[in-house]
Amino acid sequence: MVAIRQEADVQDMSTILAKLETLEERVLELEENMPEDRVTMVVFSGDLDRLLAAFIIATGALAMGYEVSMFFTFWGLNGVRKNRALDGKNIMEKMMSLMSPSGTDELSLSKMNFFGIGAKMMRHMMAEKNVQSFEDLVDMTSELGARFVSCGMSQMVMGIHESELREGMDEGGVAAYLGDAVSSKVTLFI
Amino acid sequence: MVAIRQEADVQDMSTILAKLETLEERVLELEENMPEDRVTMVVFSGDLDRLLAAFIIATGALAMGYEVSMFFTFWGLNGVRKNRALDGKNIMEKMMSLMSPSGTDELSLSKMNFFGIGAKMMRHMMAEKNVQSFEDLVDMTSELGARFVSCGMSQMVMGIHESELREGMDEGGVAAYLGDAVSSKVTLFI
Amino acid sequence: MVAIRQEADVQDMSTILAKLETLEERVLELEENMPEDRVTMVVFSGDLDRLLAAFIIATGALAMGYEVSMFFTFWGLNGVRKNRALDGKNIMEKMMSLMSPSGTDELSLSKMNFFGIGAKMMRHMMAEKNVQSFEDLVDMTSELGARFVSCGMSQMVMGIHESELREGMDEGGVAAYLGDAVSSKVTLFI
Repeated sequence: MVAIRQEADVQDMSTILAKLETLEERVLELEENMPEDRVTMVVFSGDLDRLLAAFIIATGALAMGYEVSMFFTFWGLNGVRKNRALDGKNIMEKMMSLMSPSGTDELSLSKMNFFGIGAKMMRHMMAEKNVQSFEDLVDMTSELGARFVSCGMSQMVMGIHESELREGMDEGGVAAYLGDAVSSKVTLFI
Repeated sequence: MVAIRQEADVQDMSTILAKLETLEERVLELEENMPEDRVTMVVFSGDLDRLLAAFIIATGALAMGYEVSMFFTFWGLNGVRKNRALDGKNIMEKMMSLMSPSGTDELSLSKMNFFGIGAKMMRHMMAEKNVQSFEDLVDMTSELGARFVSCGMSQMVMGIHESELREGMDEGGVAAYLGDAVSSKVTLFI
Repeated sequence: MVAIRQEADVQDMSTILAKLETLEERVLELEENMPEDRVTMVVFSGDLDRLLAAFIIATGALAMGYEVSMFFTFWGLNGVRKNRALDGKNIMEKMMSLMSPSGTDELSLSKMNFFGIGAKMMRHMMAEKNVQSFEDLVDMTSELGARFVSCGMSQMVMGIHESELREGMDEGGVAAYLGDAVSSKVTLFI
């Protein structure tokens, strides 16, 4: 056994080196494919309660040292709205604008909203328990380094101008979203 | 040091070979466990806007070379409805049918629907900006090779016949969904 | 070639051992980072239909040998409610309580609820087709070993006492949720 081994040594050596190289390549490929420390969300909903959940998860992830990528689409754009502009919009876009909240203070709840009373109540109960306001949460999420992407197609279809959204947002499409999502440990549609 | 090494060589060689083998097995297990290039969605919602988001993500993923698996359950089945059949249904199933959209042209928005005006407006605004219609998006998603699975339990409970849904759908249960989901890079509940 | 190889052997041997060690470390890191056989959900919604979907996915995953972690937040807490208590609540908390379902039998559908008729119809159709009731599904999910976490912040803000929820739940925050989510193969927001 030992004799055979020794004779086979040179052979072994090159086999081993070749095997090592192949294994190294496979490990490299695994590393490149491995989900990264990132949470990526589609923020579709424009309801205050769902948006709160999204930003609470975001700040939690950031505090744990994770990257956060939030892709705002459809009503979700209302969560990063700064104000309302009507100039340069066609009649449908104007109607859409007027029926949408002009700012985050007008966001409503998905349940028990009762024409805004529910949302006010939720905000009041949060303040009473010393929970950050929604607006502070969004600012904090941005300051902690989350990536905010606004869906270009939603903006175009609904006629939402860049000036109506928060500063410092990227504009992107589904490719931008998927680029972040496919390498994330957590993916959510909110 | 060199002397010790040389004496230890044969020993080393078999140790190395054993280590290599163990490592290869571990790498193989990692490869088998690695998330694949797939996006898997539960399509629960039957709202036009949410369905649009689902199919936009699906076509985007397919364009990037990802597999897409969509599991239609509860109201989500309305997104792949072809027509309405009442024959052979009991009274509750008939009621359920009559209250559900008979086809995708009757899908409503999750917000600002106003008895269908909102959905029509959304479709109009999409057409005006040369965005594909919902029906074209679904066809394209299917043609690009997405897997459509209809939830057998939802169909049974709600009394939805196979003939009411698009052609070429698989029927499956939660095991079919999870089978695709657990090896996906992106998992969404829409 | 062979001669050069032999001369280089000792050199090779230590290089190989070093390479093996590095590779072992990289494989170990991959293994530690690899998603585990776990499905983690944020259960945000308190709608009977969405909750049903969540628990059907949960029982399916458990049956496949996966771990399941469910984080109940906002209205989702209504899915694990046992009863309603008003003692020791302030006026807003009392209002919130009275407008929330006192137990899971009062859960409503997200669509076609018609003041509770829809939910009753759904339950009737499920029973007729011998599908487990919602309450049985929840019990089974718990018995099969799913981890139920109630969101401490939601409880605090909405004034929901531990005694109003099912027994055997953990109370936790976003860190507890993310701790489970980041190592899961499937992550959902329901």
